[in-house]
Amino acid sequence: MTEQTLPEPYQGLGGRALTSALIAREVPPSCHPLGERNKLVMAVGLFAGTPFPCSGRLSIGAKSPLTWGIKESNVGGTVGWKLARLGLKALVFEGRPLNGEIFILRLNAEGQELLPGDEYKKLGTYRLAEDLHKKYGPRVGLLAIGPAGEMQLSSAGVAATDIQGTPCNYAGRGGMGAVLGSKGLKAVVIDDQHAKEEINFHDRKRFMEIARNFTAKLRETKKELREYGTAVEVAMSNEFGYLPTRNFRTGRFEKIQGLTGETMHDLIKSRGGRLSKPCMPGCPIKCSNVYPDAKGNPLTSSLEYETIVLLGANCGIDDLDAVAEMDRLCDDYGLDTMEMGAAIGVAMEAGLLPFGDAAQAIALLKEIPAGTPLGRIIGNGAEITGRVFGVRRVPTVRGQGMAAYDPRGIKGIGVTYMSSPMGADHTAGCAMPGRTGFDASKTYEILKPDGQEELSLDLQVMVTVFDALGLCFFIGLSPETIRTLADLHQARYGPDMTFDDLIAMARQTLKIEHLFNLRAGLAPVQHLPEFFETERLEPHQVVFDVPFETVWDHILKNLDVPHK
Amino acid sequence: MTEQTLPEPYQGLGGRALTSALIAREVPPSCHPLGERNKLVMAVGLFAGTPFPCSGRLSIGAKSPLTWGIKESNVGGTVGWKLARLGLKALVFEGRPLNGEIFILRLNAEGQELLPGDEYKKLGTYRLAEDLHKKYGPRVGLLAIGPAGEMQLSSAGVAATDIQGTPCNYAGRGGMGAVLGSKGLKAVVIDDQHAKEEINFHDRKRFMEIARNFTAKLRETKKELREYGTAVEVAMSNEFGYLPTRNFRTGRFEKIQGLTGETMHDLIKSRGGRLSKPCMPGCPIKCSNVYPDAKGNPLTSSLEYETIVLLGANCGIDDLDAVAEMDRLCDDYGLDTMEMGAAIGVAMEAGLLPFGDAAQAIALLKEIPAGTPLGRIIGNGAEITGRVFGVRRVPTVRGQGMAAYDPRGIKGIGVTYMSSPMGADHTAGCAMPGRTGFDASKTYEILKPDGQEELSLDLQVMVTVFDALGLCFFIGLSPETIRTLADLHQARYGPDMTFDDLIAMARQTLKIEHLFNLRAGLAPVQHLPEFFETERLEPHQVVFDVPFETVWDHILKNLDVPHK
Repeated sequence: MTEQTLPEPYQGLGGRALTSALIAREVPPSCHPLGERNKLVMAVGLFAGTPFPCSGRLSIGAKSPLTWGIKESNVGGTVGWKLARLGLKALVFEGRPLNGEIFILRLNAEGQELLPGDEYKKLGTYRLAEDLHKKYGPRVGLLAIGPAGEMQLSSAGVAATDIQGTPCNYAGRGGMGAVLGSKGLKAVVIDDQHAKEEINFHDRKRFMEIARNFTAKLRETKKELREYGTAVEVAMSNEFGYLPTRNFRTGRFEKIQGLTGETMHDLIKSRGGRLSKPCMPGCPIKCSNVYPDAKGNPLTSSLEYETIVLLGANCGIDDLDAVAEMDRLCDDYGLDTMEMGAAIGVAMEAGLLPFGDAAQAIALLKEIPAGTPLGRIIGNGAEITGRVFGVRRVPTVRGQGMAAYDPRGIKGIGVTYMSSPMGADHTAGCAMPGRTGFDASKTYEILKPDGQEELSLDLQVMVTVFDALGLCFFIGLSPETIRTLADLHQARYGPDMTFDDLIAMARQTLKIEHLFNLRAGLAPVQHLPEFFETERLEPHQVVFDVPFETVWDHILKNLDVPHK
Repeated sequence: MTEQTLPEPYQGLGGRALTSALIAREVPPSCHPLGERNKLVMAVGLFAGTPFPCSGRLSIGAKSPLTWGIKESNVGGTVGWKLARLGLKALVFEGRPLNGEIFILRLNAEGQELLPGDEYKKLGTYRLAEDLHKKYGPRVGLLAIGPAGEMQLSSAGVAATDIQGTPCNYAGRGGMGAVLGSKGLKAVVIDDQHAKEEINFHDRKRFMEIARNFTAKLRETKKELREYGTAVEVAMSNEFGYLPTRNFRTGRFEKIQGLTGETMHDLIKSRGGRLSKPCMPGCPIKCSNVYPDAKGNPLTSSLEYETIVLLGANCGIDDLDAVAEMDRLCDDYGLDTMEMGAAIGVAMEAGLLPFGDAAQAIALLKEIPAGTPLGRIIGNGAEITGRVFGVRRVPTVRGQGMAAYDPRGIKGIGVTYMSSPMGADHTAGCAMPGRTGFDASKTYEILKPDGQEELSLDLQVMVTVFDALGLCFFIGLSPETIRTLADLHQARYGPDMTFDDLIAMARQTLKIEHLFNLRAGLAPVQHLPEFFETERLEPHQVVFDVPFETVWDHILKNLDVPHK
């Protein structure tokens, strides 16, 4: 274990820009994702620890055991903030324990300590968090893996605690929990109690002024997210007709009523749960919640759009309590709910269980920590499940299950699935209805192929700026926001960084990610699975029809990635 | 079902040159390998039906469910010869049956007939062949799949009958049996009894003269293959130190004595089995055999080098009877023995069963037709087995298990694994000790990286000529042979084809294969799995050290594939 100042090539970088730069430079693209030459990097964003709202997201990156390409997955909660308070920019986990031991890494104002963790072996994250809070105090932040991470299943995520200390925030995508497991780390305990780190602002007054104004604006504009959480989108996606239903068979779910944000809101309220909960200190959006069971006991937190749709509608399940129970199990086992929703949908497609059968879906999830062959198949995600059972309709790109947007019904997101170095993430370039790119005067229709490659790439670049700065993208992805962020960067660090510089940093990050993937054996643009090109999606009777060559040329030319 | 003359773009092409040209032109690279837009193509070589020795191999190609790239796998036996006798150059299977029915395709001098095959569902290939021979006569040729092909497992091969009618020759690699299964074809019955096809030689006399001389030479030079079969190589590979042992842990097996060609020879002889058996009419090499059990009853045919090493040494098993039993099970289930050897090795690495435990290995194989989750995992090959069980040491490239040559101990074959569009096939460019490329004065040392990219590519080009002509590569891969083949081509078809033209056709075939793969999402050169770069192989303490960039540049520049 060594501690050092950020080496020269990484100076000025944060979040995903830092994790990807370090991986591209130090990890051989040919390495096994679970082997000793892979590195897992956790990096705070460039505004972490400041009062700028929603700036405490933590990027976790490595070569992914799910996509076998470079990956970054970021997570909210208090951990980014606490690491910054300890003056830490990044943690890098290298090598591999020789004898299968597991460890707890404890960080505090005194320094760092690696402690034996065998007593926590195979603990679920909920019980683990309880034990660690008992031992290290109720206010420490935790990053942790469940049994799935220890089993190195490629759908395993890394849990992070929220303000209440619940391990319910997830760097879920791409198997980062499996990589942490391969390094022998069960948890990182972050104790910032006696932290003395002071932030040297270049212009504190200006920074605080921008932060204050921005917070006020968010407080005004994000009322729906505050009231209904991200589940507010459920009804909207259904209405637009891109809601993945029964393994992406249709774009609307006839039983949607059971899953909407309104239904969830009313259930939570009537059972005495909690709405409008922030995941990180100072967040004015507060899209999180605590979902109680029928008796009013906290069941899971937070129930989100992606989880509800993928474990719900995508599996033909309209029972929110069942979805909440699956969410709790996934969180406790340390699994990505999105990948599990996609995998169970594929298992249903394969005929292992019927669509809509929540009890069997829950039983299937319980196979995972039991380590049965079937459990290991599902725990390795939708692509592996599809391969093992010979399923033709498998909604994955680069081995990763798609987010809860059918690309036929919202084509810009389809382009993101094809061309993001990350695989089928929505966050990588979320071309929601009405979104525009750098040229705000240019509009796009979600059902039409025209210009979607432009829109997607513009958004991929913008979100990469956000990921480098550690920001939640709910604060609003737009050139205008990025101009504000450039001002903020100047107030934080000095006059060097302009809007153009931020964009250039994001583009450079995307480029090195693509180059890593190419050397890892993955072509930089992937087709969507065949059925999106051949099966018409109800209700709009659309296929995915953005031409492959158009995407290939636009994305690769613009990012200066070898392509001809 | 339609019959047509070979369309213009395919004229003059045969074997792999034809299967790959048709797939590249007509199959969308984005298609699901088991879906209706994939096509399975069977094409005879350009000398099929003639008396030129070993010219009856049949190429079977499709987008592979194992590699997800373009694939060609070719097979001996009588089927190529019989198809040519019926005047058929290629069979193309398209679409997919709507209701899971299975069919038998019957070809004879009258034409073709598609017959219901439900009575043969889930039959092993041995029993199937017996039934079909009863029904259609003992002399028909058969192409068939076992239960594994019907289950569309990606290690399923296509069996072809030999002269005795035993379904023991395999187009094993790349899951061609699964693709045939996805088309609903259980078997093709080829009845050439009343075939009237006459070959119009451009110069019959010259053709016969070349064929006669070539046959005489083979008869003289291939005595070891005739006596010991391909198993003659077992002791040699062990001596050289590149024999995959216990999942590619070492290059020598301390119990090799149980598996050598000499041991096999003596066992077969003492039990009254058969040695020196030709697989196709007129073959003077006769490397095939019938291996009997301890009571003298035929157990399997033919026991080959790749099978013996991968199901034997690679699983730590030194009992030839056990290997023969596994070979028989694989043949009967319709599985590639090579992929199964690699997959069982990986399962042993994962701790599912101990290295060397033949009884458990046999039990594991029996899970496959039973369709258990574990059976489906293994039946989908080494890569999937490794992914499901989180194994770090998985000897695959492009999802396909390596042939029985450890690339650290024989580096030119390692380059072939990296850069062949086919994945880790030895036949794709078999850089055996002493082999040279187009410049016969230039020699290569198997343990040194120098020049291996040249040697591999030269051999890849030469073998592609062989694959287009339908030739067994045991007749001797060399520029000299190819010059003879150009003469032969002229005697067969006229003066158009020169040595250079044959080479150009092969290079064009490799190029379109790489382009297909690139559009299917696969980078054209792949790293070998990490452990070949990091673990030293006994006895020579070597890692694989041919630089990735060297291979990338040499192969892609030479084949004119986009790479910068």
